[in-house]
Amino acid sequence: MSKKQRVALLGCGFIGEVHAKNLVAHPGIELVYVADTDPSRVDMFSQRFDTRGATASQAIQDDSIDMVLIASATPTHADLLEAAARAGKAIYCEKPIDLSLDRARRVADAVLPLNVAITVGFNRRFDASHQQLKQQLRQGRIGEAELIQMVCRSSEMPPLSYLQASGGQMRDQAIHFFDLLRWLTDDEVCEVAAMGSALVQPEITRFGDVDTSVLLMRMQRGALAQLDNTRRTGYGYDERISVMGAKGMLESGSQKPQGVTCYQGSQIQQPGLFPDWFSRVQATYYAHLDAFVRSLNGESVTDLPGLEDGLKAQAIAEAAVISLAEGRFCQVALATL
Amino acid sequence: MSKKQRVALLGCGFIGEVHAKNLVAHPGIELVYVADTDPSRVDMFSQRFDTRGATASQAIQDDSIDMVLIASATPTHADLLEAAARAGKAIYCEKPIDLSLDRARRVADAVLPLNVAITVGFNRRFDASHQQLKQQLRQGRIGEAELIQMVCRSSEMPPLSYLQASGGQMRDQAIHFFDLLRWLTDDEVCEVAAMGSALVQPEITRFGDVDTSVLLMRMQRGALAQLDNTRRTGYGYDERISVMGAKGMLESGSQKPQGVTCYQGSQIQQPGLFPDWFSRVQATYYAHLDAFVRSLNGESVTDLPGLEDGLKAQAIAEAAVISLAEGRFCQVALATL
Amino acid sequence: MSKKQRVALLGCGFIGEVHAKNLVAHPGIELVYVADTDPSRVDMFSQRFDTRGATASQAIQDDSIDMVLIASATPTHADLLEAAARAGKAIYCEKPIDLSLDRARRVADAVLPLNVAITVGFNRRFDASHQQLKQQLRQGRIGEAELIQMVCRSSEMPPLSYLQASGGQMRDQAIHFFDLLRWLTDDEVCEVAAMGSALVQPEITRFGDVDTSVLLMRMQRGALAQLDNTRRTGYGYDERISVMGAKGMLESGSQKPQGVTCYQGSQIQQPGLFPDWFSRVQATYYAHLDAFVRSLNGESVTDLPGLEDGLKAQAIAEAAVISLAEGRFCQVALATL
Amino acid sequence: MSKKQRVALLGCGFIGEVHAKNLVAHPGIELVYVADTDPSRVDMFSQRFDTRGATASQAIQDDSIDMVLIASATPTHADLLEAAARAGKAIYCEKPIDLSLDRARRVADAVLPLNVAITVGFNRRFDASHQQLKQQLRQGRIGEAELIQMVCRSSEMPPLSYLQASGGQMRDQAIHFFDLLRWLTDDEVCEVAAMGSALVQPEITRFGDVDTSVLLMRMQRGALAQLDNTRRTGYGYDERISVMGAKGMLESGSQKPQGVTCYQGSQIQQPGLFPDWFSRVQATYYAHLDAFVRSLNGESVTDLPGLEDGLKAQAIAEAAVISLAEGRFCQVALATL
Repeated sequence: MSKKQRVALLGCGFIGEVHAKNLVAHPGIELVYVADTDPSRVDMFSQRFDTRGATASQAIQDDSIDMVLIASATPTHADLLEAAARAGKAIYCEKPIDLSLDRARRVADAVLPLNVAITVGFNRRFDASHQQLKQQLRQGRIGEAELIQMVCRSSEMPPLSYLQASGGQMRDQAIHFFDLLRWLTDDEVCEVAAMGSALVQPEITRFGDVDTSVLLMRMQRGALAQLDNTRRTGYGYDERISVMGAKGMLESGSQKPQGVTCYQGSQIQQPGLFPDWFSRVQATYYAHLDAFVRSLNGESVTDLPGLEDGLKAQAIAEAAVISLAEGRFCQVALATL
Repeated sequence: MSKKQRVALLGCGFIGEVHAKNLVAHPGIELVYVADTDPSRVDMFSQRFDTRGATASQAIQDDSIDMVLIASATPTHADLLEAAARAGKAIYCEKPIDLSLDRARRVADAVLPLNVAITVGFNRRFDASHQQLKQQLRQGRIGEAELIQMVCRSSEMPPLSYLQASGGQMRDQAIHFFDLLRWLTDDEVCEVAAMGSALVQPEITRFGDVDTSVLLMRMQRGALAQLDNTRRTGYGYDERISVMGAKGMLESGSQKPQGVTCYQGSQIQQPGLFPDWFSRVQATYYAHLDAFVRSLNGESVTDLPGLEDGLKAQAIAEAAVISLAEGRFCQVALATL
Repeated sequence: MSKKQRVALLGCGFIGEVHAKNLVAHPGIELVYVADTDPSRVDMFSQRFDTRGATASQAIQDDSIDMVLIASATPTHADLLEAAARAGKAIYCEKPIDLSLDRARRVADAVLPLNVAITVGFNRRFDASHQQLKQQLRQGRIGEAELIQMVCRSSEMPPLSYLQASGGQMRDQAIHFFDLLRWLTDDEVCEVAAMGSALVQPEITRFGDVDTSVLLMRMQRGALAQLDNTRRTGYGYDERISVMGAKGMLESGSQKPQGVTCYQGSQIQQPGLFPDWFSRVQATYYAHLDAFVRSLNGESVTDLPGLEDGLKAQAIAEAAVISLAEGRFCQVALATL
Repeated sequence: MSKKQRVALLGCGFIGEVHAKNLVAHPGIELVYVADTDPSRVDMFSQRFDTRGATASQAIQDDSIDMVLIASATPTHADLLEAAARAGKAIYCEKPIDLSLDRARRVADAVLPLNVAITVGFNRRFDASHQQLKQQLRQGRIGEAELIQMVCRSSEMPPLSYLQASGGQMRDQAIHFFDLLRWLTDDEVCEVAAMGSALVQPEITRFGDVDTSVLLMRMQRGALAQLDNTRRTGYGYDERISVMGAKGMLESGSQKPQGVTCYQGSQIQQPGLFPDWFSRVQATYYAHLDAFVRSLNGESVTDLPGLEDGLKAQAIAEAAVISLAEGRFCQVALATL
């Protein structure tokens, strides 16, 4: 068995807790440090996960640390990524690299030559059902992809404070599906058209956001794609992808927990979808972490999203933001990556 | 195209109306006479279906008549069957031949040597889904049948008067599935065990009937079968059959009309099953009639239930009646058929 | 019972045959004439459907005729519509009114003041499942519509000759869903964005057509809609609509014939979707005709698509054609109708 | 938080390993000893699960041990149960108590007066879907149970050696469903009829076993139940239960892992059922253990199967064995428990 990766977790918020649980449960990882700007959180995490507190820079400078997991606030990602890369650490960085695509590009320019292992937090690539879809698509089961449908619908509006700092629906929510689309098809998005509205919470238009949006995308090899996003459904978390090719259609459908079906009168009632996004995608965080650890241990792992993947998904999001705002088709600036 | 079959319909009740509609709609049939002991029904039918009234014996003695459809009250079946057979008519006879298996056997003894075309009303053989099941079973898709599950659940209790004259749940309701079981497996039932209760309407125990029953059957080639019957479900009409073999399972499942699915809160609501037995099996009456006409026109039709099929299904019903009443396993008296 | 509508069928092609069957089967209709420019077709239809041949103008001028069903070639629709309206006939006219929206508008201007009963062939409004969806939406089951998804996928490419005369995918295929969208939501489309490609049959780009397309639409009351269209699926005919509102989602899903499910090894195999568009929508032609006859007999029927509906759906199609061709968002010219 | 339960695991075979994993993963348990008659297994387990080896009697006599988990070979259960109960331990005992119902009764007579906490390994009570069914049944959603259908189908024949020591299909496999039936309905089985055959592996008839069987059961309050059992399906592991009452039906259906659906040609292919029994019921072992620990910590837990439940399910199995062997209905000897 390989040596355990010694890991520092930077960021002790909601998503930091998700990662902390996985880090302590993974047999190939030792959680050495937790860091946060808030000392009380550091205390809580170090006690709960039986580990030590540190500042982010202490953790990054500690030579015994192999890997850094960046789960801190978005504005801190870029600096921490650069510092950890310069210190030669393997890096798991939550998305996005930075809300500014320019800044994200400069980080990539600085970091890529350092040749450290980096993965960006597009954990949905590790959904077991989406992975089957990609595998069967690659094996040619339905021929070349022609028409892709994606649905990304959260069950409940996040707090206004979250939305205000999020970068908007394209950069915060849809971005996972921009990545999934590229990954599933092994192709690039070249053109985007988007329409959106604030149907659920009109006040978010103050900072230019929408909560309901629909998108068209044209792929370089000719396929066409659709995506819809909502922040609130009234029926649970709905995530699904279908890909049509010349020889049929593959569908990674809406998912719901197992349960009882009731036949009564003129109706059949089944358990509904997962109540929220987290109950649906929870397992993918561990699977992503595990894939990264396996790659650090020398295994060939093809699905890991890298820094370039982070940039490319952000470039699509930027085009979508422009299309939404200006009511026009928008090319994706792939050439400049 | 073949000459039209000139048909007399004997019996103008509920099931007579079902047949009348099909007879006038079938391009290969001319409905010449309708007969009933009640003249007002004859009037109504002859007007509505644009045909003439007659007595049953007039219709049977008319040389221009090719085929007789017996849909009159059960106690009249045997006599009409014998008379029509002696007159050389093709005969479509509603089940059962007679509530007394002995009487039914004597009819068969008298009629079979006359070599007229006869089909008994086991219309469920013509359910499109059950037919696919039989076809795939015959093609060996799952190997030899080992375990058969059948469900036969009506949505609402028939009136007490109907039940009292029906011969009981085994002879009236389950008999369709005794026939389906023989037909699907090309095998014979040799032993039956049945348990039953009057859970819905306890007063039917006065004449020895049950409204809820479960049965085990052993087939000659070794397969085992289950059947459950109820007279009232609370969730529509539920008819389904599954057959397990060494290589898999075939399922002709519960059926429901197309409709809208509603995703709401923590539930998914779909349209329920067909509301009653008739909306589910309606199409099979026409398909059965059509198959009979095709066979009269010289086409080879393998699924037509004949007089022997009527007797054999009744023999199973008799064994089930004994098992129910006496609380013991009961052999099916196949040898004496 | 109401007097029978005396009907002349204009056009004895594929769709004329569909209508002829329904006309003779409908108890409230007498099919008096069939007309076509090809005398051999007239002979065939008059024999097969036991009726008489006539020229279109003879049929229209015959005072005993109540209703005219226009199922002739598209370029003849406008003239026949005008002539039949001037003759005071009730009119069932296949879509489109004319491939030219301008010409269609002039027809409407001429015909609407004549106050004859007219319905345009948007038969899909009479799909039982879509009707349930509309009914439940109206009853407020999921609140106001926010996000509509529509899929319109034919199983096989029509012949090149058909495509060349069809007006293109927007005017020929998508138009049914432009009408469904307006009808389901009781709202109007105000803006369209469309992307399309000739992925199946590149030669159709010669006449500016596509076989695969995706569309976004913005509704006047704020809802957003998606539609995808393909001409060939590899998996049968796929038509489905879902509508999301604040309180849940209604889904009129993909439909398939009943049949057998096979459980085998690591897979479950079910019957596929309907093999082609016709087997899926067949029943709606009769239902539409029946609704029109009921309205002629004085019944209040709210779902009948009228001449304005024909124009409005065409106006959306025109905007989609422009969006496709010019790669830009396009407003729908509702004001000028 | 409660003090950790100090546990000794007796038995280091296949099922011992299942329990060992759960014992070390449970936050309220400390796995102190592992015991087995085979020292090499003890070594393996103590190393892998970071614990100590002991003999069963050492473990039982150690005063610091709170709880004993008996997962050793069936013939050792009775003695270990008695010894552990006399030593005052809480006991989780794999089913059955003993293959001899008499011996099992004597164990119960000896142990029950000692008032130690005991649960017998009917882990399927902790299936999340079955639990929903019971809850909804208790809440009266479908009225009183009238007709219960249960399917228990393993995917692959166990080795002959296993079968020979198993006590036969009724005592080894069906027994889980005898317990589920009692638990779900809060009722007792009073009469059984069973038919069985060795259709898969005829040589098991040498020791009087069957691999395919069907059963009828009558409940004291009048409901009727069916159960079928097979040892090999050809389509994965199939476990399902439906309960019909006067007001509808509840169904805890066949389960399959999430995955991709493929629409192709005239078929729809979905992922099949769970490949084997273990992948389906795995989670219930932990849930059962956790419920037992919670009850030891003073929480009121109603679903725990006790020693009487073990005896009653075995009494049904004995009746079924007689019915199978003698081809007769057999009463369940409840009175003598």
